[in-house]
Amino acid sequence: MIRFECDYGEGAHPRILERLASTNDEQTPGYGEDVFCARAAALIKGACAAEGADVHFLVGGTQTNLTVIGAALKPHQGVITAASGHIEEHETGAIEAVGHKVLALESPDGKITGSQVDRLCRAHHGDPNHEHRVQPGMVYISHPSENGTVYTKQELVALREACDNWGIPLYMDGARMGYGLAAAKSRAASGQSAGEELALPDIAALCDAFYIGGTKVGALCGEALVIASEGLKKDFRYHIKQRGAMLAKGRMLGIQFEVLFEDGLYMEISEHAVKMADLLRNAFALKGYEFRYDSPTNQVFPILPEDAIHALAEKYAFFEWEGAGEKSGKRWATVRLCTSWATREEHIRQLTDDIAKL
Amino acid sequence: MIRFECDYGEGAHPRILERLASTNDEQTPGYGEDVFCARAAALIKGACAAEGADVHFLVGGTQTNLTVIGAALKPHQGVITAASGHIEEHETGAIEAVGHKVLALESPDGKITGSQVDRLCRAHHGDPNHEHRVQPGMVYISHPSENGTVYTKQELVALREACDNWGIPLYMDGARMGYGLAAAKSRAASGQSAGEELALPDIAALCDAFYIGGTKVGALCGEALVIASEGLKKDFRYHIKQRGAMLAKGRMLGIQFEVLFEDGLYMEISEHAVKMADLLRNAFALKGYEFRYDSPTNQVFPILPEDAIHALAEKYAFFEWEGAGEKSGKRWATVRLCTSWATREEHIRQLTDDIAKL
Amino acid sequence: MIRFECDYGEGAHPRILERLASTNDEQTPGYGEDVFCARAAALIKGACAAEGADVHFLVGGTQTNLTVIGAALKPHQGVITAASGHIEEHETGAIEAVGHKVLALESPDGKITGSQVDRLCRAHHGDPNHEHRVQPGMVYISHPSENGTVYTKQELVALREACDNWGIPLYMDGARMGYGLAAAKSRAASGQSAGEELALPDIAALCDAFYIGGTKVGALCGEALVIASEGLKKDFRYHIKQRGAMLAKGRMLGIQFEVLFEDGLYMEISEHAVKMADLLRNAFALKGYEFRYDSPTNQVFPILPEDAIHALAEKYAFFEWEGAGEKSGKRWATVRLCTSWATREEHIRQLTDDIAKL
Amino acid sequence: MIRFECDYGEGAHPRILERLASTNDEQTPGYGEDVFCARAAALIKGACAAEGADVHFLVGGTQTNLTVIGAALKPHQGVITAASGHIEEHETGAIEAVGHKVLALESPDGKITGSQVDRLCRAHHGDPNHEHRVQPGMVYISHPSENGTVYTKQELVALREACDNWGIPLYMDGARMGYGLAAAKSRAASGQSAGEELALPDIAALCDAFYIGGTKVGALCGEALVIASEGLKKDFRYHIKQRGAMLAKGRMLGIQFEVLFEDGLYMEISEHAVKMADLLRNAFALKGYEFRYDSPTNQVFPILPEDAIHALAEKYAFFEWEGAGEKSGKRWATVRLCTSWATREEHIRQLTDDIAKL
Repeated sequence: MIRFECDYGEGAHPRILERLASTNDEQTPGYGEDVFCARAAALIKGACAAEGADVHFLVGGTQTNLTVIGAALKPHQGVITAASGHIEEHETGAIEAVGHKVLALESPDGKITGSQVDRLCRAHHGDPNHEHRVQPGMVYISHPSENGTVYTKQELVALREACDNWGIPLYMDGARMGYGLAAAKSRAASGQSAGEELALPDIAALCDAFYIGGTKVGALCGEALVIASEGLKKDFRYHIKQRGAMLAKGRMLGIQFEVLFEDGLYMEISEHAVKMADLLRNAFALKGYEFRYDSPTNQVFPILPEDAIHALAEKYAFFEWEGAGEKSGKRWATVRLCTSWATREEHIRQLTDDIAKL
Repeated sequence: MIRFECDYGEGAHPRILERLASTNDEQTPGYGEDVFCARAAALIKGACAAEGADVHFLVGGTQTNLTVIGAALKPHQGVITAASGHIEEHETGAIEAVGHKVLALESPDGKITGSQVDRLCRAHHGDPNHEHRVQPGMVYISHPSENGTVYTKQELVALREACDNWGIPLYMDGARMGYGLAAAKSRAASGQSAGEELALPDIAALCDAFYIGGTKVGALCGEALVIASEGLKKDFRYHIKQRGAMLAKGRMLGIQFEVLFEDGLYMEISEHAVKMADLLRNAFALKGYEFRYDSPTNQVFPILPEDAIHALAEKYAFFEWEGAGEKSGKRWATVRLCTSWATREEHIRQLTDDIAKL
Repeated sequence: MIRFECDYGEGAHPRILERLASTNDEQTPGYGEDVFCARAAALIKGACAAEGADVHFLVGGTQTNLTVIGAALKPHQGVITAASGHIEEHETGAIEAVGHKVLALESPDGKITGSQVDRLCRAHHGDPNHEHRVQPGMVYISHPSENGTVYTKQELVALREACDNWGIPLYMDGARMGYGLAAAKSRAASGQSAGEELALPDIAALCDAFYIGGTKVGALCGEALVIASEGLKKDFRYHIKQRGAMLAKGRMLGIQFEVLFEDGLYMEISEHAVKMADLLRNAFALKGYEFRYDSPTNQVFPILPEDAIHALAEKYAFFEWEGAGEKSGKRWATVRLCTSWATREEHIRQLTDDIAKL
Repeated sequence: MIRFECDYGEGAHPRILERLASTNDEQTPGYGEDVFCARAAALIKGACAAEGADVHFLVGGTQTNLTVIGAALKPHQGVITAASGHIEEHETGAIEAVGHKVLALESPDGKITGSQVDRLCRAHHGDPNHEHRVQPGMVYISHPSENGTVYTKQELVALREACDNWGIPLYMDGARMGYGLAAAKSRAASGQSAGEELALPDIAALCDAFYIGGTKVGALCGEALVIASEGLKKDFRYHIKQRGAMLAKGRMLGIQFEVLFEDGLYMEISEHAVKMADLLRNAFALKGYEFRYDSPTNQVFPILPEDAIHALAEKYAFFEWEGAGEKSGKRWATVRLCTSWATREEHIRQLTDDIAKL
């Protein structure tokens, strides 16, 4: 069985394991105050062109989300998200457990728009009974989204403006950030672009905080949280500690991000995953299959008939996303296949061959 | 500078790093449902003689404490601890942040007694205004304690009985569990014992839940939580997820605990650390210094005059714990030195030589 | 201006004020442990035919909801409600502030069904990733609902069965309970009934907990919470105190509910309000207007053209509920008019005359 | 049995009941936006010489404390209090339930000092591991304290300065505020004063927020919260609603405070209670008994031998506070007697006669 179910099925990029080994005997202070974390933070600030930012390393995505959102909101505030957002659907009420309502907006593709945010805030503050409702206090987006889609620069600017209009921070969950950046680069290189692709400096300039995912992009675990806004920076390490997110051996996270960012490894492996996903997308498209979402990233969402799904499922593991009705006397469904930094091209070739034979 | 400040200054035991590397390409399901976690859990249940227990792997100590305590208590309940307990002093209010008061008991040595628990509960339930106070709902102890001291079997039985009397669970924080087990084994071997040393099966039989620390005992990170009582087992993975404690690559924790428990490595490295600490204790004792706490574990708390402290501080890093008054015209202070699985005997020899020269 | 905006615009029923005055000098213990609370609780248990129940008096509805739901749920659980439920829409995130997600179900009329609950629970527990989602842990309904509609016995039995199937409690918010009971009695008396109307003993037999609203039914403030299930009874006074819901002068609530329940006053004033609302409904129906919701209680929701709304708004205050589109070249809207225990028949006669003239 | 157990044993001052009756039929908007609340707020701002303040009416003390403290603190912060503070001892963990640790300072008399606050904050921020501890984020004091003692102007200025030094707000719980103000006025009138007594304008000038207690000073229920600092004012009504503290019939609180403050009734009844307490204090002092606390307010804490306690307990109800050891072959104890706005002078005369006969 060759697995395309998720992007966290293997361990870590070998260079990370090597560096963990080669630095193993060095004695460092604990709790993220070591030289590896310092160097990794500097590399990330450089990559973001955000020298004034603060960078913290946390262990996982849910943890990062609940720590940031819990620190940013006041008790009467909630966080705006797409209805399919990770914090709404996949975190067992972690945000509510730190006291806050999740304000979900309809979203056909995993993204939300500045005008949706604006409308929600306007409706709230225009309601004479607004004190009886949760005040919108932050915007949470994922880039790429749960559906593999990405924001353009224009879309992110519109969200920023909506946030500025209402005085609330904009936070980006970048669990799969690398794959979003790589898709942008690939689209730009292909000439499809109109200068609208988001790179890290754009994101750092437009968001109050965001995290660069390590767990799904080559690390054993770890997310690099970048905080640009002064209000959120203050006392942030207290919040990390309080939520159980401060590792005694914080070095373990610093080392990994140093490796990922010192020689462009993060982009290199992300581009590999997107290239592999593009091969899959081409193979499905050549057979005339359509896609549920316009994902240019490492997630591929073809809509397939049941016989094709069964045929592929004999050799490949993937995720059945949702039903897609009946057509030509067959049941159809959307499936999700993920590539990653660890995907082997030979496996992709095998699969594309099998797709061609469908 | 040779560092004895803490027991988390280095990376991980080399065998852990090797295993992470050798298993790196294996594809596994996420979220702790992989074969490594399953094997590690089986090994730990074996070591605890607790086949019916549930074992979960979490990332760090504060996280494990807040997840367990948050899951066990009802909103009106608090958790009993020594005033020096980690949850009271060193977790930035993590327990309060999940809604619960910490009920601190006086403790000269980091331990609390069954009769203290009994008195507190009796006073609470005997108070006609008890509904205006937080109800004691759980007992939290550390073994070894923050002061390096350990519970005897008799002491733990007394705590168990007090808990049973009042119908509340007993939870043990074993961040440094290995060093406590090793100290017990060493004391037993030396003939000092009266059969009162705690081994893992005793702990599993007497506690409702406890965790076996990895972070401070050879792992990169990770704590193995053992839940013996049925009430706490139910739905526990929801709590892990909600608190941000469920790793996508849960295998990373399973692999580490498999290595630590498959060939006795956990005890072997713990015994090494205690042996190293014993060398330090002997060296200080030979010079006539006294100790602040009766710690038989990897933490050593000699009370030293300021000149001795300054002399040692030139070559060695350690932690100044608290002042100890004036004596013979000098300021004295308690210092803490930690050994660990990573302590090199040559460094200990250097230090004991230097102690001898004080 | 004659006001029909809400059912809490006046003070309290005069008999309540008289009793507060006549008992004023009696000295009683505090915190709800007085003789008035005891007598009121006994009367309510009698009215519910629920001698084994516990009755507590709290001050307001949001407070009662957050106290009950916070006490009943475990951290990983959420509460099921209609999307229009008070806890979802009108309590400023009070439930999230005590840590729990609100799981909203679509509802055209303010009610939810047993099969909706069943489907939601089945979907949750059937999801292999259920641990990543909030577990349904309680059902919250309002009777009457926010739309003035009421549950039949059959509907409540179906909800009870769904709750039993999934082992979760059923909780009813009865902020306007009296008006629901009165509507049932009126319908039964009119021969429209098929024995399906809910009376207090039915509710007590079918719900784990519910509250009988005082604030909107003749009291200055106060809600009588009835707890039927053993699990919820335990330690409940701690929860009341912790949430700031325990009055030092608890007698103030006991006195009011004693007056309301000793001679049938609660039903008498509720029936008055429903009779007044029926007069309004008849007046609107005679003119051919339709109603947004099939409310038999004290809330009336006619759909009116803008000119009628403007005409009535000159003399009467009421609430514009929502737009209802264009028809016959006019903008139409649903408005809400509330009667209450305090509504004067002469005001209703004036209004029905004015409706007739529209 | 004549009761001196507490100051909330009766109903409300008759003028309050009269006003509730005379205003009963007036129709007003709900949720504290009525004319009575507006007038009461204006009266209170006048009495405080604090035109810029915001005034809100809440139902009870625990509720007010949890709402204010929950609104003011960030998640990693705790609130400083005397160890005997109401929030530490008598609110069932209400503050922890909204997420915050209570940082208790030793206090022999129920008060804390500016230098204690300063030392705690200095120690916290000077600790290199401060991020592992709860950050002091607010100071909570009671005036009068749980022991009936009062702050002088100098003492409150010192607390204000400490708070300013560390940038944290100062909050005063005035559940028995009237009795503190009356004691100050009485002391000033007696010539004992050095201009050090606190009046409402001093308190409003020195505190960021405080509440003027109604429940224990003549009202059925209700506390008037005065917020002076801009930071706390913002969005405060959301917090009131979220915590279940916003009454639909908010008028009920406004009416009561309007009566208490329109003609000096609040001070008048407070002065009566203090005068009655002074009679008791004199009677005990004449017999040579000492007092546990130097309370000039409505609470009296004589230390009595057991035979005296038993003799008095035959006719009078009071509270046995704590043991006071053995002396002259007898067990002694501190008892607490409370007077209030409702205390009848004839009862006091009876009791002082009986004290004289001891």
